[in-house]
Amino acid sequence: MATAEKEAEVDGERCYFVGGGGRPHPARARHMSAASTAPVPASQVGHWAAETDVLIAGNGCAGASASIEAAAAGARVLVVDAAGGWGGASAMSGGEIYLGGGTPVQKACGVEDTPDAMYAFLKLATGPDPAEDKLAVYCEGSLEHFDWLVRCGVTFVPKLWTEPSWEAPTGYGLMYTGGENAHPFADLVPPAPRGHIVHMEDKRPGERSAGWMLMKHLVATAERAGVEVRYNTRTERLVVDGERVVGAEVVSFGERHFVRARRGVVLAAGGFAANPAMLAQHAPRLAGNFLVGTDGDDGRGIRMGQAVGAAVRHMDAGQTSFPTDPALLYRSLLLDARGHRFVNEDTYPGRVGQTALFKQDRKTFLLYDETASEEAARLSGYAVQPTWVSDDLGELAKEMGVAPGVLAGTVATYNAGAERGEDPECHKAARWLRPLAPPYGVLDLRDAPCGVFTTGGLHTSPRGEVLGLEGDPIPGLFAAGRTTSGIPSWGYCSGTSLGDGTFFGRRAGRRAGRSAATA
Amino acid sequence: MATAEKEAEVDGERCYFVGGGGRPHPARARHMSAASTAPVPASQVGHWAAETDVLIAGNGCAGASASIEAAAAGARVLVVDAAGGWGGASAMSGGEIYLGGGTPVQKACGVEDTPDAMYAFLKLATGPDPAEDKLAVYCEGSLEHFDWLVRCGVTFVPKLWTEPSWEAPTGYGLMYTGGENAHPFADLVPPAPRGHIVHMEDKRPGERSAGWMLMKHLVATAERAGVEVRYNTRTERLVVDGERVVGAEVVSFGERHFVRARRGVVLAAGGFAANPAMLAQHAPRLAGNFLVGTDGDDGRGIRMGQAVGAAVRHMDAGQTSFPTDPALLYRSLLLDARGHRFVNEDTYPGRVGQTALFKQDRKTFLLYDETASEEAARLSGYAVQPTWVSDDLGELAKEMGVAPGVLAGTVATYNAGAERGEDPECHKAARWLRPLAPPYGVLDLRDAPCGVFTTGGLHTSPRGEVLGLEGDPIPGLFAAGRTTSGIPSWGYCSGTSLGDGTFFGRRAGRRAGRSAATA
Repeated sequence: MATAEKEAEVDGERCYFVGGGGRPHPARARHMSAASTAPVPASQVGHWAAETDVLIAGNGCAGASASIEAAAAGARVLVVDAAGGWGGASAMSGGEIYLGGGTPVQKACGVEDTPDAMYAFLKLATGPDPAEDKLAVYCEGSLEHFDWLVRCGVTFVPKLWTEPSWEAPTGYGLMYTGGENAHPFADLVPPAPRGHIVHMEDKRPGERSAGWMLMKHLVATAERAGVEVRYNTRTERLVVDGERVVGAEVVSFGERHFVRARRGVVLAAGGFAANPAMLAQHAPRLAGNFLVGTDGDDGRGIRMGQAVGAAVRHMDAGQTSFPTDPALLYRSLLLDARGHRFVNEDTYPGRVGQTALFKQDRKTFLLYDETASEEAARLSGYAVQPTWVSDDLGELAKEMGVAPGVLAGTVATYNAGAERGEDPECHKAARWLRPLAPPYGVLDLRDAPCGVFTTGGLHTSPRGEVLGLEGDPIPGLFAAGRTTSGIPSWGYCSGTSLGDGTFFGRRAGRRAGRSAATA
Repeated sequence: MATAEKEAEVDGERCYFVGGGGRPHPARARHMSAASTAPVPASQVGHWAAETDVLIAGNGCAGASASIEAAAAGARVLVVDAAGGWGGASAMSGGEIYLGGGTPVQKACGVEDTPDAMYAFLKLATGPDPAEDKLAVYCEGSLEHFDWLVRCGVTFVPKLWTEPSWEAPTGYGLMYTGGENAHPFADLVPPAPRGHIVHMEDKRPGERSAGWMLMKHLVATAERAGVEVRYNTRTERLVVDGERVVGAEVVSFGERHFVRARRGVVLAAGGFAANPAMLAQHAPRLAGNFLVGTDGDDGRGIRMGQAVGAAVRHMDAGQTSFPTDPALLYRSLLLDARGHRFVNEDTYPGRVGQTALFKQDRKTFLLYDETASEEAARLSGYAVQPTWVSDDLGELAKEMGVAPGVLAGTVATYNAGAERGEDPECHKAARWLRPLAPPYGVLDLRDAPCGVFTTGGLHTSPRGEVLGLEGDPIPGLFAAGRTTSGIPSWGYCSGTSLGDGTFFGRRAGRRAGRSAATA
């Protein structure tokens, strides 16, 4: 496996190739602080360079939401971010927010939904070990959260997009982002689309995304609420007085300062996909892929929490993209290394990606025909070139290293079912079933890297308190966003990161803002 | 999923059903201390009830080995164990120790092996993210470790057992325990058996196992070396002086005492498979299975380490058995929920178990015929009853819920290959290939629980030092065995737990014993 750091433009985003072979790469390590995360006793703080009520590390969607609610609770709030400006990974995202229970957008699109259906779906889709306590408040509070986002200036176009794709085109505000309308979930819970897409008039992939637009509204709202912000300011260590967190040491342009936080510190500093050593330690299967995130996703927020006794949760979990066009995927057969299908291709492509990465070690092929290729190209605007093309499945099997006859059997089973409008093997919906006809194309996806980010992190209560090893809150410490393990407990749906980050960011900020101040 | 605690006799061992649904069960939680693991500052210790140089928590194979070497280094040593006697999970095990590089037993059996071949194999078999630094010293030091075990009184019968089974019968001292002689490893590294089985004359499964015999020798050696031991004494919290660990608080018959450890504390207190809350938090896929271990595997050793700033590693990892007779497995086709094969059935059954659990969510079937059933029953001494029997694969497919034609295709592909002495699909060795003939039996293994234990834990150096979040040793703190993440980094081979526990237990004990004493 390649160990050199690679940069690549993937879908217009600047991505990094992370942790080839799971070993830290010196060039990457340079960006990261190796300084200790061990907390500083308050007695060793000579001088507080700044004082505030609530200090928030990170100005992505979780930090910004926390800052708004902490200020609304009457607290003085300081947000610091290691980057030169706001946004973090949130501003690079597609701007999908997982909301439901009957939002005005859902209603305008004729979609029926309830908090119970939303809860039932997310409990199934985000397990094993779904965060039931968080899911309960998240689903119950989703309508109120929708209203809050609207009050922050966020708009959603009430128009449903139903084609398979990672993101919807401008002008659509709602889409399926978790496989709600596909096997197995569609058979278990009444399906509803819940991916609410932040509206942006001049969306230009690679420049400004809908996630950027979300952040613009949140940061503007925070500014109106009187939140102070410092950029190029990295949080390095927490300051503790006994068991209570009372501030942090920050580094700004090479200088170290202590910031006192009378009511609490909120860690909202992203995940750890940019830290190859942490990936190897906790989530080695995510290594060797493209980072979806920023250099700030170095896990320091998580380690600072651990250093004061916080528990972590599901550190092996991660979201993965799938390395080809969803419009083509839905119309194809996705095969494992032995030439068998293993998942319904019409579910959420992130779920396909997780299955391919975690259950097939990335060893997959896509088999399709000319009709599938043409239809997908027409929708996506680009054609995927197959690795091999042939009329003869036996010949393709040989290229793929698949046992003789297996590929012909796979296609025969699929075609026979498709004729009847059924997929007895993987339960793809009838809409996508059509017997494949020669010539066939096979795309070799073995070892094709996908985009990844981590979803494991600090264990927090639904109120945003960071919990210790025995489950008790650590006084003065709060966290939200990908620094924590949240709604995407293990399984993932697009929109649960911005959804979880904003929702529990608000709760962490509110809880911190209302905490009793230290003297 | 069942949430009630179940007890069952599995292979003669007392096993517990752990963590149904990944939720803690009150009846289990009773056995566990919910007391804080937060360290006690030495300044708060009023009275040291006991003083020693090296305090060791746990008297399983890691703790006992550590005690012997700490004493050999000239230290005064006290071992405490929460149980009423020695042994821990080690004494319940099959007594296999993974050793190689050309041991006298290997040589007497005509087996060629080198430290390099052993390293190459383990690096492949224990990844992703194999513990390369530990593997290097483990393979290099394996011959010396063999000699040390012999000096402790352990004997091995130089006779090779080659039938597929979890354990060898009395009188055999060597077997394959990692799939060394099967695909894919046999194609990549010259295979050698390395599972060295501790000899025991009157081995009676369910009463005394070869693991018990190993422990008997180790404990006797420790006693001769002057090691002190206290049972019914549970280590609850570490005592720290600044960053250094200087002792521990122990609980014995309800009374709390502080024990000073002038040179260091060694945590050798087992894994966390008996702690449902920790399983849910870190390894939810292991929940709902049978615990291989003791009530002492409650993860407290790991949490005590974390509470003083230790890093953890691969907390999602675990070893799993496979829920049926290996002799039958090798002669059968193991199928996924869709009726396809997915692994060569003749590899190490623990590897099959991991693949079935982690990659197939336990949804598997075993398909075999009368010849396979009879041969396996003759070897194992018991017959496995199939769930369904039929001459008609289409009928069986219907029972299994498999798409029409798929099962017939699976068997046709296998039989055609077997006729030629090949397995183009999964690469089972020629020895096990034989076309299957009707009537066929299918054993439904969907949701059949397997035996599990955890292999994630504290991050330690190859010297046995516990490492902090930034990779620096925590002064005065050492660990070994399943409290740590070791040789079974992710993948597993039988014998790597006793091997890793004894080998790195020795190193931890030696390092602790040679440490400078605190005043």
